[in-house]
Amino acid sequence: MTDTQAMTPTQRLAAILDSDLFGRFIIAVILVNAVTLGLETSPSVMARAGGLIHLIDNTCLTIFVMEILAKLYVRRLRFFLNGWSVFDFVIVGIALAPGAQGLSVLRALRILRVLRVISVAPRLRRVVEGFITALPGMGSVFLLMAIIFYIGAVISTKLFGQDFPEWFGDLGLSAYSLFQIMTLESWSMGIVRPVMEVHPHAWAFFVPFIMVTTFAVVNLLVGLIVNSMQDAHHEEEGERTDAYRDEVLSRLEAIEQKISGLAEEDRKL
Amino acid sequence: MTDTQAMTPTQRLAAILDSDLFGRFIIAVILVNAVTLGLETSPSVMARAGGLIHLIDNTCLTIFVMEILAKLYVRRLRFFLNGWSVFDFVIVGIALAPGAQGLSVLRALRILRVLRVISVAPRLRRVVEGFITALPGMGSVFLLMAIIFYIGAVISTKLFGQDFPEWFGDLGLSAYSLFQIMTLESWSMGIVRPVMEVHPHAWAFFVPFIMVTTFAVVNLLVGLIVNSMQDAHHEEEGERTDAYRDEVLSRLEAIEQKISGLAEEDRKL
Amino acid sequence: MTDTQAMTPTQRLAAILDSDLFGRFIIAVILVNAVTLGLETSPSVMARAGGLIHLIDNTCLTIFVMEILAKLYVRRLRFFLNGWSVFDFVIVGIALAPGAQGLSVLRALRILRVLRVISVAPRLRRVVEGFITALPGMGSVFLLMAIIFYIGAVISTKLFGQDFPEWFGDLGLSAYSLFQIMTLESWSMGIVRPVMEVHPHAWAFFVPFIMVTTFAVVNLLVGLIVNSMQDAHHEEEGERTDAYRDEVLSRLEAIEQKISGLAEEDRKL
Amino acid sequence: MTDTQAMTPTQRLAAILDSDLFGRFIIAVILVNAVTLGLETSPSVMARAGGLIHLIDNTCLTIFVMEILAKLYVRRLRFFLNGWSVFDFVIVGIALAPGAQGLSVLRALRILRVLRVISVAPRLRRVVEGFITALPGMGSVFLLMAIIFYIGAVISTKLFGQDFPEWFGDLGLSAYSLFQIMTLESWSMGIVRPVMEVHPHAWAFFVPFIMVTTFAVVNLLVGLIVNSMQDAHHEEEGERTDAYRDEVLSRLEAIEQKISGLAEEDRKL
Repeated sequence: MTDTQAMTPTQRLAAILDSDLFGRFIIAVILVNAVTLGLETSPSVMARAGGLIHLIDNTCLTIFVMEILAKLYVRRLRFFLNGWSVFDFVIVGIALAPGAQGLSVLRALRILRVLRVISVAPRLRRVVEGFITALPGMGSVFLLMAIIFYIGAVISTKLFGQDFPEWFGDLGLSAYSLFQIMTLESWSMGIVRPVMEVHPHAWAFFVPFIMVTTFAVVNLLVGLIVNSMQDAHHEEEGERTDAYRDEVLSRLEAIEQKISGLAEEDRKL
Repeated sequence: MTDTQAMTPTQRLAAILDSDLFGRFIIAVILVNAVTLGLETSPSVMARAGGLIHLIDNTCLTIFVMEILAKLYVRRLRFFLNGWSVFDFVIVGIALAPGAQGLSVLRALRILRVLRVISVAPRLRRVVEGFITALPGMGSVFLLMAIIFYIGAVISTKLFGQDFPEWFGDLGLSAYSLFQIMTLESWSMGIVRPVMEVHPHAWAFFVPFIMVTTFAVVNLLVGLIVNSMQDAHHEEEGERTDAYRDEVLSRLEAIEQKISGLAEEDRKL
Repeated sequence: MTDTQAMTPTQRLAAILDSDLFGRFIIAVILVNAVTLGLETSPSVMARAGGLIHLIDNTCLTIFVMEILAKLYVRRLRFFLNGWSVFDFVIVGIALAPGAQGLSVLRALRILRVLRVISVAPRLRRVVEGFITALPGMGSVFLLMAIIFYIGAVISTKLFGQDFPEWFGDLGLSAYSLFQIMTLESWSMGIVRPVMEVHPHAWAFFVPFIMVTTFAVVNLLVGLIVNSMQDAHHEEEGERTDAYRDEVLSRLEAIEQKISGLAEEDRKL
Repeated sequence: MTDTQAMTPTQRLAAILDSDLFGRFIIAVILVNAVTLGLETSPSVMARAGGLIHLIDNTCLTIFVMEILAKLYVRRLRFFLNGWSVFDFVIVGIALAPGAQGLSVLRALRILRVLRVISVAPRLRRVVEGFITALPGMGSVFLLMAIIFYIGAVISTKLFGQDFPEWFGDLGLSAYSLFQIMTLESWSMGIVRPVMEVHPHAWAFFVPFIMVTTFAVVNLLVGLIVNSMQDAHHEEEGERTDAYRDEVLSRLEAIEQKISGLAEEDRKL
């Protein structure tokens, strides 16, 4: 108490925002909001208790907006330096955006607020941060796959676009179809066999495409495994090994110096 | 013999229940019961030998019930501290539950008794225990996937529920459809292409959903591999390395002390 | 020459059978036979050159039979101790078996002779031996999957057999359908959605089944990776590390002995 | 400047070709060309700006041809010793080949020029070189899979070719169908269930085929992971460990020599 009395109001606000209790309160609000947003999908529930659900939903939103305003007030522009704060800001902002034409999409996106639970719960945060730190290492392979997809889309549009406009009509449709083929979903019975009835040699494009993209995906996976393995190995084993090695080297040095001391004393004798 | 004569009847019962011979007898009963439960699925076999099969089935069940009662009598409440005992208790209990409306389902579940072979055979038990110990480490990723599925189910119900009530009519149907999409089964030809005919931008929801959930599954796999690798590494390599390191350090210490001894003797001289 | 002249006829035959030249000759015969067996599938080629192809095919078979008879003569019963010899024996034997009713199947299986190239080419042999040595380590998981499949087949036959006799009519059909579902092929659109129209809660059986079997398959994969990794690690790194450790320990011992020698001489002084 | 003035014209040209600035210029030309080749797929864009796009396309091609001619002039026959140069040569050559019947295919293949970005950007180059160096290690498994596919194609053509000419009519069609089955696409609902209506035991061929090929693919993956892991381990950990070991051994040797020196001096005393 004496501690908080000495604080300025801004510091007191910052202390509240950082407190565990406030974090748990926000998680509770998020979970309540998740339930109401889920209930909103049921017409029968909305018919009976629509007013109450909207009320709770708006209350939750108000709490989120006030929380972010408070954080903005306390941290000022530093607020935007933290990726998770910006993440919260954007997600809450979606609900306030005036939805002109894409109204239903924006209303549907309000459920993304549940993602805020990740930014508040430390364990989930660490998992997501682990995912994100794994991404840059896969950048080159992603770039390579983008190139392969672009080339594949151009070739398939030029060769099969006229005969199969639904699948390969333009670059976008082709890219989508190639993504489907890469996931191996109905690639043969659904796409390549019908195409081969018109272009008998179409397999010479699609089979290598499947092999190359699958091989690239496998390499992504292999890269991920090798990286996590090394991180895990370093963290756990590395420190113990380093401590042991330092111990051995320092002991060897001590022995060498003692022997040199002995030799010198001998010489004095 | 003198040994067992000195035992109380309860101790003698406990010794029998823990003996290898009794374990093998129970495995034999489980296998016989597995065969009869399998034969029960064949109407022609049941027409010819239904009475005999029911008799064997009931005999097996009686043996299981007596085994569990004996264990309960010997171990009392400690019986419920062992996960595998509870597992046996529940599985055998299913057969005794009075089946009112869900009769056929309960009758079908009697085959779960075959799972008892896992609790009795040590090697299978170890494999399953290995599976179960791997689960907690994946808890955060599972929680994250549950959040993603909930968000995905709400969004897809709101956006596509009205036009495709069969697939996205309510949260449950949407979650099932999203699970199907995550397994990549008919995701494009079966679901997303038809949806795109009504909502041309539906791919902007489904393709990222596939990428995120697949990436999460891959991370589960990577986590599993890294964990098993470390366990295997520790068990086998770790002990030898530790023994070697202790040997080196104790020898270095011995050398240092001997040299110190030498130096002291020199000084005395 | 003087060497072979000193040999008995049996030893000379054994030397020929083990020679590189003979191995290459057999590989050539296998490849020629592979081509002729492939050409046999083409009616137009058979119409034009069927006689020649049958002649070559029979010549190859004669060579194989003579090779095996020669090996049998030289090695006697030891012939059957080598897995690869038995493999050759069975594969060549298929062609000689009098095919009563299953004629076309037996004729088709003659192509299995091409597998002999594995038993003759050392590199392929090592790969296959690597596969086979990996199998026992996966035995428990395979047994577990067999149990899960048996339980799954009994449950699905009892619950869905009457309404969907084509997929779950008896244990065999159910096991095949469950294998299909495990490979995720058309599991939802093809099987589970139709089943759910009659049994709305069928997902409660199939979704856990998919999760459990997929998890078991993933564990097989993880086990394989960990095993190969350890083998590779041991082979390559282990020897160097062992050599280094022996070197360090023997040097430390030498130092200790020299110091003890010093101390003794000092004491004598 | 004085530096370049001392160079012969050929050396000056070589310096330009190797310069960073020239590399970036070529990347820019490739990207511009990629965009124009992509725009060519859109009939509406071609109707409006077809002339301009063809002009840019031809300009890019001219630049590529001049670059390769310059490199050929500078490096002479050494040009063909570098795999990436040959790669550029072939890709640019495709655009110049006089396309008689396969015109549309050759025109479509011009987009392969975008692949040149790999040969120019060092990071992408390293990823692809990593892929390629991984291939030889998988040679034996690939050969094995080729043998399995050949045997599978012959057997399925002989057994099912007459009843299902569309899928198993000849070796090529069978190989394509088996590839589809290996990727698990519609293998059961699309192919094996219809085949089983005519040949009820067809599963006895297809299910083992799926198991064997999947197992082989998994072994490819395992091999890749183990190899990358070892490379990564060697590169990073290996050097530090080697340095540490050398340090320990040299220090131990120094201590031994000093003690020997001490002993000798003692003896002199």
